[in-house]
Amino acid sequence: MAGSSFGKNFRITTWGESHGEALGAVVDGCPAGIKLSEADLQKDLDRRKPGRTEFATPRQEADQVKILSGVFEGYTTGTPISLIIYNNNQRPYDYSEIAQYYRPGHADYTYDQKYGFRDYRGGGRSSGRETAARVGAGAIAKKLLAEFGIEINAYTYSIGNVEINPERFQKEEVSNNPVAMPDPIAAEQAVEFLRKIKDQEDSAGGVVECIVNNVPAGLGEPVFEKLDAMLGRAIFSIGAVKAVEIGSGINASKMTGWEHNDFYRYSEDQILTKESNNAGGILGGISDGFPIKLRAHIKPTPSIHKQQRTVNKAGENINIQVKGRHDPIIVPRAVIVVEAMVALTLADYLLQNTMSNIKLLKRALQAPE
Amino acid sequence: MAGSSFGKNFRITTWGESHGEALGAVVDGCPAGIKLSEADLQKDLDRRKPGRTEFATPRQEADQVKILSGVFEGYTTGTPISLIIYNNNQRPYDYSEIAQYYRPGHADYTYDQKYGFRDYRGGGRSSGRETAARVGAGAIAKKLLAEFGIEINAYTYSIGNVEINPERFQKEEVSNNPVAMPDPIAAEQAVEFLRKIKDQEDSAGGVVECIVNNVPAGLGEPVFEKLDAMLGRAIFSIGAVKAVEIGSGINASKMTGWEHNDFYRYSEDQILTKESNNAGGILGGISDGFPIKLRAHIKPTPSIHKQQRTVNKAGENINIQVKGRHDPIIVPRAVIVVEAMVALTLADYLLQNTMSNIKLLKRALQAPE
Amino acid sequence: MAGSSFGKNFRITTWGESHGEALGAVVDGCPAGIKLSEADLQKDLDRRKPGRTEFATPRQEADQVKILSGVFEGYTTGTPISLIIYNNNQRPYDYSEIAQYYRPGHADYTYDQKYGFRDYRGGGRSSGRETAARVGAGAIAKKLLAEFGIEINAYTYSIGNVEINPERFQKEEVSNNPVAMPDPIAAEQAVEFLRKIKDQEDSAGGVVECIVNNVPAGLGEPVFEKLDAMLGRAIFSIGAVKAVEIGSGINASKMTGWEHNDFYRYSEDQILTKESNNAGGILGGISDGFPIKLRAHIKPTPSIHKQQRTVNKAGENINIQVKGRHDPIIVPRAVIVVEAMVALTLADYLLQNTMSNIKLLKRALQAPE
Amino acid sequence: MAGSSFGKNFRITTWGESHGEALGAVVDGCPAGIKLSEADLQKDLDRRKPGRTEFATPRQEADQVKILSGVFEGYTTGTPISLIIYNNNQRPYDYSEIAQYYRPGHADYTYDQKYGFRDYRGGGRSSGRETAARVGAGAIAKKLLAEFGIEINAYTYSIGNVEINPERFQKEEVSNNPVAMPDPIAAEQAVEFLRKIKDQEDSAGGVVECIVNNVPAGLGEPVFEKLDAMLGRAIFSIGAVKAVEIGSGINASKMTGWEHNDFYRYSEDQILTKESNNAGGILGGISDGFPIKLRAHIKPTPSIHKQQRTVNKAGENINIQVKGRHDPIIVPRAVIVVEAMVALTLADYLLQNTMSNIKLLKRALQAPE
Repeated sequence: MAGSSFGKNFRITTWGESHGEALGAVVDGCPAGIKLSEADLQKDLDRRKPGRTEFATPRQEADQVKILSGVFEGYTTGTPISLIIYNNNQRPYDYSEIAQYYRPGHADYTYDQKYGFRDYRGGGRSSGRETAARVGAGAIAKKLLAEFGIEINAYTYSIGNVEINPERFQKEEVSNNPVAMPDPIAAEQAVEFLRKIKDQEDSAGGVVECIVNNVPAGLGEPVFEKLDAMLGRAIFSIGAVKAVEIGSGINASKMTGWEHNDFYRYSEDQILTKESNNAGGILGGISDGFPIKLRAHIKPTPSIHKQQRTVNKAGENINIQVKGRHDPIIVPRAVIVVEAMVALTLADYLLQNTMSNIKLLKRALQAPE
Repeated sequence: MAGSSFGKNFRITTWGESHGEALGAVVDGCPAGIKLSEADLQKDLDRRKPGRTEFATPRQEADQVKILSGVFEGYTTGTPISLIIYNNNQRPYDYSEIAQYYRPGHADYTYDQKYGFRDYRGGGRSSGRETAARVGAGAIAKKLLAEFGIEINAYTYSIGNVEINPERFQKEEVSNNPVAMPDPIAAEQAVEFLRKIKDQEDSAGGVVECIVNNVPAGLGEPVFEKLDAMLGRAIFSIGAVKAVEIGSGINASKMTGWEHNDFYRYSEDQILTKESNNAGGILGGISDGFPIKLRAHIKPTPSIHKQQRTVNKAGENINIQVKGRHDPIIVPRAVIVVEAMVALTLADYLLQNTMSNIKLLKRALQAPE
Repeated sequence: MAGSSFGKNFRITTWGESHGEALGAVVDGCPAGIKLSEADLQKDLDRRKPGRTEFATPRQEADQVKILSGVFEGYTTGTPISLIIYNNNQRPYDYSEIAQYYRPGHADYTYDQKYGFRDYRGGGRSSGRETAARVGAGAIAKKLLAEFGIEINAYTYSIGNVEINPERFQKEEVSNNPVAMPDPIAAEQAVEFLRKIKDQEDSAGGVVECIVNNVPAGLGEPVFEKLDAMLGRAIFSIGAVKAVEIGSGINASKMTGWEHNDFYRYSEDQILTKESNNAGGILGGISDGFPIKLRAHIKPTPSIHKQQRTVNKAGENINIQVKGRHDPIIVPRAVIVVEAMVALTLADYLLQNTMSNIKLLKRALQAPE
Repeated sequence: MAGSSFGKNFRITTWGESHGEALGAVVDGCPAGIKLSEADLQKDLDRRKPGRTEFATPRQEADQVKILSGVFEGYTTGTPISLIIYNNNQRPYDYSEIAQYYRPGHADYTYDQKYGFRDYRGGGRSSGRETAARVGAGAIAKKLLAEFGIEINAYTYSIGNVEINPERFQKEEVSNNPVAMPDPIAAEQAVEFLRKIKDQEDSAGGVVECIVNNVPAGLGEPVFEKLDAMLGRAIFSIGAVKAVEIGSGINASKMTGWEHNDFYRYSEDQILTKESNNAGGILGGISDGFPIKLRAHIKPTPSIHKQQRTVNKAGENINIQVKGRHDPIIVPRAVIVVEAMVALTLADYLLQNTMSNIKLLKRALQAPE
């Protein structure tokens, strides 16, 4: 599984299984001199923590993060930052049954096919629990981005058929309701819908939207490392994502060129503006200085209590009821994971942008221009 | 622009500008011993070639590909395969005007911001012409995949509001109409729609769908290099793509877990089947042996003759009419580019899959198990 | 410091400082299905452990390694293997003095120049203690190589002017004397020499030699990833190495072509042999199936008690006496580090070799040839 | 052969065989805004060109380089620079005989073992001719380094037993004699020695030395990407190199710590100096601002006319006389290849150094500190 790293210059490597002793990440390439503490990471980890609401798995995990290296006297040193999160609650269930069959919608079958066997305890490495390490690393990326004023905000855009109403948008609401919606009325409807789904022993999906403000123009590398291409990869690397939209997204295919093109204008005080932002802040794979906007479509949690059909390793068709603690929806907890993946992508491109042209380079290295 | 490479072990690097002398690709990591000729590449390049239909740019390019290295006596040698396509028709227009302003929907502004200046001839490196090199390289990937029976088929799913009807699906139709649709009736409607758009000096977008058959289970690497994550990156790296869907795509967020989960069943002759394929052939980032299915949403061509608002480098608000030869839609020509990017992604993962477990490895290297 | 990873497909990332809480490594890309326990790693770590002989630093460290992920029921799962070694003895000295000046022969000055400040506790990340993590990871690579019969043996070839005599070569001796020499008489002379050097509050250097047997032909990738090029990088990445030789090494430049070329011969039972091995088992960057042979020239430990001249951060010329616990020679402890780096390099190339040609590939993936 | 790329951010990919139609390189990641012409590259290529002296192969090649992309109106654009060199003289000999046996000292046997067959025309990809592409790419790296005042000078240090005398060192001499020695008297002796070797139908080796001046402190990344580690890889990637020394090199193992440590001193005008440079300008893998010094030990040309023993593919022991045009020594032509590889390594690290700490980064991106 040589797929546990992300980023070229701001590079993270994660490790750990759902029910192993611990999980963690190593961040290599974070510049020296950034103020960083465990509290900076914990804040984001707390937003992902299980057991906080009626729709999150009741598994009890403190998700306390510890920094083991790369920080000295409160500042990053430029050396790898190793962070670790111990699993408190490793083996609450008997997994012997689950080891014998393939849960629909999970990676059980594909891991077995690829590796010859699998760590069946709670999904092992394929569990969503793996994203805790990303959130910790993402918080470090955010600290770097904050030095340049870049701000990332994600929230639940829809759950099932319940969408937020942009006119009621209130950023603070995101942390005030159990569904992470920035619209209190939609949030209430979503809660009602989810209670019904939970009663039916079923689960629901939804859409996360993410807006990034204050991105400087110039981030991204053309052709195969376009900023949108790497954001696409970043978001699709979150387990349950089935579609990603940038800017105008799925509406783009129905618009005409004249409708879709964002016309540039200078404002009266000679600031460059755009009359629209269908590009979602990215043109030719490079940020244009306007807000980046993307959406992640997330499938319903595959673990449901409702009876399902499947097969076992003995070659039989069987019916199963998946036991254990599960979220009826993962969307609200995925919000912070989306933020983390966007932050990791932007941090990597921010670093790389210093090498774009000889003027930037000379400025960085204080050579005479 | 260190973004011109794609793939880890089956790795391509492309180069060249729209109006430079030539463009090309280097494929490094193609295994030795595969039969390969220029004709294998030309076949795919001809599907992308400009000037073939009334909706493709009238620019005249033979797009003749030449292999300069890596093939000996008709077989790949394991060394880098360098392919080159000369531009016949390099400077048909005067670009001095275009150099002075930023075309809406193009990369003019972002390249200037990043690099300090830009090659303004026909978009330079940011031109869709760059994809010719990908198509050549993709044809090599397809030859490798064909050795394992893997087949990739893309086609136009929709143009504007005109969608194909799955009940009328005929694969051969794709090469019979100028819009690459597998449904002759939808194709006619799309042609009619495009003629209208063209008359209005405007342009249209659409959706490309791609199905891959005979993919073995096990391709893909977990976490950040999930097969769907890298397919997402691959497809978003095609200039005009604004959304990507895998399997159930944007419908996933509206379904319940019970509806979305693909139930496994053994057939009477003990073959593993699934009752649905919402996963689109990928679970936990690893192929499950069922068809891979994805969609790319493509924006309308930004180059239109219709008058647009923009700014120039002198800091003025101006109106422009972009001259020159342009496609009123790029979707039909993007179909083969989607195939190429999918092929390149799968080829890379096919190679990597040999390293998944010690049994495969010993089999490859003929060590005693 | 985005330089903490090594390997492309069998890839390790190390982290940790000399006097931090812990140090460790993440191994990503180890195939599933290999038997692995902490004892496999501990065996090699014990060979590097401080405090074992009169010539090793008296720092007390158990160097107990723990595996946190990637192993399930005694076998590797294909997921990242995270290993951790806690530092028991983190702050025995007051480092406030050392923080103010630059120790000659150390990285103090260069880290300050690069990062703006440094973790001055015992050298921080630049300490040789960092190699403990490599040794743990190297032991995993050795387990993989052992499945293919590949054996790596390193030992001290010389200390100061004392060289081993090949006629007295006894492999077992390496673990019988404090200088890791395979020749008991040279070992005694070296011990005597080192006692003298230690009395003078000075330090000594030496040469480590490494032989790898049973390497299959075909490992290595041409041009920039030649097996010897990557071994060269691997060995030079060990802090104190100032020269690397492969095969005939520094003698090559004095030989004629006829003397240097290794003539092939078939033995009577039709086995391919070579009349010499000046190539050191590598031709054109690819292993030829004969033993790989290399040497690492290691500088004397820079930390000495003898008075030295240097400068401080206040801009003054000063005299210093470096206090603390130091090895008068690091060569014997570097032997296992050389083995680890060779193992990591070979493991990576072993995996990659499965992709060399279509026959190997089809064999691995069980496709019809 | 996925080994044809070098560098992480300033990244080159080379392609082409000795007797193919052409060979070339793609340089991806060169910053925009550097003045660059084909003449800049040709100057270095002419120093490597065959047929210039009595000791270089008489093969006639103009080695005319052409830039196909990435340069616009005389300046680099930040997009990939593709360079191509056509082979004029592709098939002067009949290679059918050579195809049947394995030349000692060449890669014939190892390529056959790895790939199943080989391009036997003049060594195919394993030929030293491949280095022409590196020299072209290296010249681009030198242009970048020159913007920062960095200067690379390599020369022949010894041929067989003939060494230069440092007291007679004259830089200009390097281009005045056929052996690229900076000492006219040693050059004469070397010429005499080589004539004798050539008469004996044999060949000779030698040592190339390289000095880099004006390197800023701070280049290099710790642990596995130490500057010396990557220089080691770079130099060992040149086909015939059997040993690499940095700074004190093979002498390091015989010195004591007190002798080897370079003592820092401030000069009267408060400039930091070192009393010696055993480090060769690199400490802890990072440049210290003093000259980088390295040596490459190069084996004698394996192609000799003198009769040799070997085996053929039919399994027979045979005697051969290798026909064709060969250098009796490659050292003088390797000098510029060493310069190229050093330049490529330093260019890559120069770019990466902008990301070391937050101050550099903010300066580059003009953010408020």
